[in-house]
Amino acid sequence: MGKEGLVIVGGVAAGLAAAMEARRHAPDLPVNVFERTGDISYGACGLPYVVAGLIPSPDSLVLHTPEYFRERHSIEVKLNCEAVELLPSKSVLRVRDGEGEREVGYDSLVLATGAAAVCPPLPGRDLEGVFVLRHMRDGRRMLRYFEEARPRTAVVVGAGYIGLEMAEAFRARGLNTTLVEASDRVMGALGGRARDAVADELRAGVVEVLFGERVSAFEGRGTRVERVLTESGRALAADVVSIGVGVRPEVALAVAAGIEVGESGAVRTDERQRTSAPGVYAAGDCCEVLNKVSGRRVWHPLGQPAVRQGWVAGANAAGRDSSPEARYAGVVGTNAVKVFGLEVARTGLSLEEALEAGFEALEVESESHTRAGYYPGGSKILTRVVADARGRLLGAQLVGREGVAQRVNVFAAALHAGLKVDEVERFDLAYAPPFAPTIDPIIRAAHEARKKG
Amino acid sequence: MGKEGLVIVGGVAAGLAAAMEARRHAPDLPVNVFERTGDISYGACGLPYVVAGLIPSPDSLVLHTPEYFRERHSIEVKLNCEAVELLPSKSVLRVRDGEGEREVGYDSLVLATGAAAVCPPLPGRDLEGVFVLRHMRDGRRMLRYFEEARPRTAVVVGAGYIGLEMAEAFRARGLNTTLVEASDRVMGALGGRARDAVADELRAGVVEVLFGERVSAFEGRGTRVERVLTESGRALAADVVSIGVGVRPEVALAVAAGIEVGESGAVRTDERQRTSAPGVYAAGDCCEVLNKVSGRRVWHPLGQPAVRQGWVAGANAAGRDSSPEARYAGVVGTNAVKVFGLEVARTGLSLEEALEAGFEALEVESESHTRAGYYPGGSKILTRVVADARGRLLGAQLVGREGVAQRVNVFAAALHAGLKVDEVERFDLAYAPPFAPTIDPIIRAAHEARKKG
Repeated sequence: MGKEGLVIVGGVAAGLAAAMEARRHAPDLPVNVFERTGDISYGACGLPYVVAGLIPSPDSLVLHTPEYFRERHSIEVKLNCEAVELLPSKSVLRVRDGEGEREVGYDSLVLATGAAAVCPPLPGRDLEGVFVLRHMRDGRRMLRYFEEARPRTAVVVGAGYIGLEMAEAFRARGLNTTLVEASDRVMGALGGRARDAVADELRAGVVEVLFGERVSAFEGRGTRVERVLTESGRALAADVVSIGVGVRPEVALAVAAGIEVGESGAVRTDERQRTSAPGVYAAGDCCEVLNKVSGRRVWHPLGQPAVRQGWVAGANAAGRDSSPEARYAGVVGTNAVKVFGLEVARTGLSLEEALEAGFEALEVESESHTRAGYYPGGSKILTRVVADARGRLLGAQLVGREGVAQRVNVFAAALHAGLKVDEVERFDLAYAPPFAPTIDPIIRAAHEARKKG
Repeated sequence: MGKEGLVIVGGVAAGLAAAMEARRHAPDLPVNVFERTGDISYGACGLPYVVAGLIPSPDSLVLHTPEYFRERHSIEVKLNCEAVELLPSKSVLRVRDGEGEREVGYDSLVLATGAAAVCPPLPGRDLEGVFVLRHMRDGRRMLRYFEEARPRTAVVVGAGYIGLEMAEAFRARGLNTTLVEASDRVMGALGGRARDAVADELRAGVVEVLFGERVSAFEGRGTRVERVLTESGRALAADVVSIGVGVRPEVALAVAAGIEVGESGAVRTDERQRTSAPGVYAAGDCCEVLNKVSGRRVWHPLGQPAVRQGWVAGANAAGRDSSPEARYAGVVGTNAVKVFGLEVARTGLSLEEALEAGFEALEVESESHTRAGYYPGGSKILTRVVADARGRLLGAQLVGREGVAQRVNVFAAALHAGLKVDEVERFDLAYAPPFAPTIDPIIRAAHEARKKG
């Protein structure tokens, strides 16, 4: 490793995980991180809870400062410094900050450019009060707007997990809130009774929920938003709007550098997080990841895989390519969200995804109870299991008021191990009246799936 | 299958699971269940919560009545009818009830005689107010005693899971409560920081906790208990005593019939729940079960395995021996208990059990957080992972205030699949700020174990 060392583009989850892992393996390696915004090392997933007032300030989401990285780990972090051009053939990155542009040489480079929230090109999208919440600065801007504009009505566009969390956050602030979703699903994949349970919970939290409704424009009074118009002709009062209709990988730098991008639109990497350019790795929300269930490389922009990919990229970039830590085994696609008192979680493939991936798949829905029937405080839990024709577990979705986000992990473990539903059915799971019925909902769901299969 | 049909000894979890499963496979098979007590089909695990007053009455624990089984499933259930002799060579069971003794022929028989609470032979153990809580009638007796004697002080003997639950139950009734444990462990296996966390929680709930203290006698005033004496010379005020120092399998009927009993003292069975006597099966707390981690047949008297063994015995007794449902794959040893606000759970082998079973085992303890650091309401979670020298997961123990009983199931799933700790470390688990930190405690614990291994 020459004196140029390791250069990392992006200073949030994946980028800093890569920096720290590289430092662990190579104590003397120069490590430079360039972050385009003024924030690093923060938990972006906490932003809705800051808006809700549950967490006192965006600063509470910050884990470490640039000084921490410099002083404790000899990792240099440059804020407000944008990477404008990558030249892999010369091993050079051009960056721009307040002082102008310059070139930085590298021995290895990690792209951790993340993802950007998609903002549909609708009339009025530039009005004050229309937000996409993605980065720390978005959260700060929204909080400032709350102080200035004192909104009383809100519209959330999109019932993905950010949309669900923002609807709850707006209600926590006492806003009259409407959630508008173009499809008839929540979280991109949940339909049927699971979708209904989520919608019921939102309505119980006094959120108006509109499915199959497309936003056509934002209208304002002066520079501030006042109304959201839909294609069906509705006009929804909105002093503030949160758009959560999706994200896209930030790949402009990579594409301009000739680095290969996969079908998903994200940077293609191998299991060592190497891109098509020698010496260039990618990690986090800007790149693809192997889905172990479908066997396909997919885009799956979430925090935990981002950190893991960062570790793998960092280990490889530091020359530790032979270590088992230098390989990423892939995801099974696990995800969870809290919606008021409801927990919603999924892992693996949905029925539609399984069919699309070529599996002869079936789905079985079952309802069970979170505690022993006689123990107070329990509630229903809805479980959907997706399996192939030979009984192999392909995925699971759970909705309930407790124990959902942890139960989905049991299915995730089974997916990692490639188990069949009859093997899940035989799991010896913890039983005590406050925690589960004698036969856990997981076992009951697997049993139903096995019988139908 | 002749007209004698299936005879089942014992009408709680395993016995009735066997009856129902046999009926499912053989609609015309005569099925007769003999229950020695006046109660069937109840959740004995709920008794401490009835004593606590959390569940209104013991009757709330009853799932189904004898009439239900007769009318809905043509299963005959005889209450207060004890099996006094089993003659496998003649395929005859002798039973005794209020009307005297008689012989019942069978084609197949399931022993589901359960387990009895151990009551050490101490002076004063027959005093009124000294209880072992095991069967429904014990719960009823204790509740009646509460009405009559209005106890104000209580001693719980033994810090197994019944003891822990009873200490909490007595506190819920406002009794001045002391827990006495002869060893320095709780739940038979937990020592060190896990034990300390449980003891701290008990003390925070105003239970006096004494470790390393052996009870020597119970003393009374008249026929009622008043004091518990210990070997170290203490005299503990006790208007009521709950003894929970262990259970033993009820095998007298089997032993007298010449049926083989394993090293553990419980009835030996194969994976089809067959005993050494032709046509005789055993299921539930009276028999052994395969521990998949150690490969040994052990005694593991818990509700979930009891029901499963009942299903397997019932399927085989009904002649469905070729079905996959007619084989029991074994347990990994999962167990959980709530102690006030604390959840304690374990699966697989403890370090001591692993060493004793011949593994070159090590144990790694780690502490993590149940939610994202910035999300309110989270708490610490202590995880111990036991692995062998080649990194195979052997067991896990968790203690914390939330998400413990479900997280232990992820380790249980990994044990079923025979995974290594570095595979657990790579699990893609659900992350959202209210449910877990970005890197779940499970992953962190597996990571620590892999690094040390």
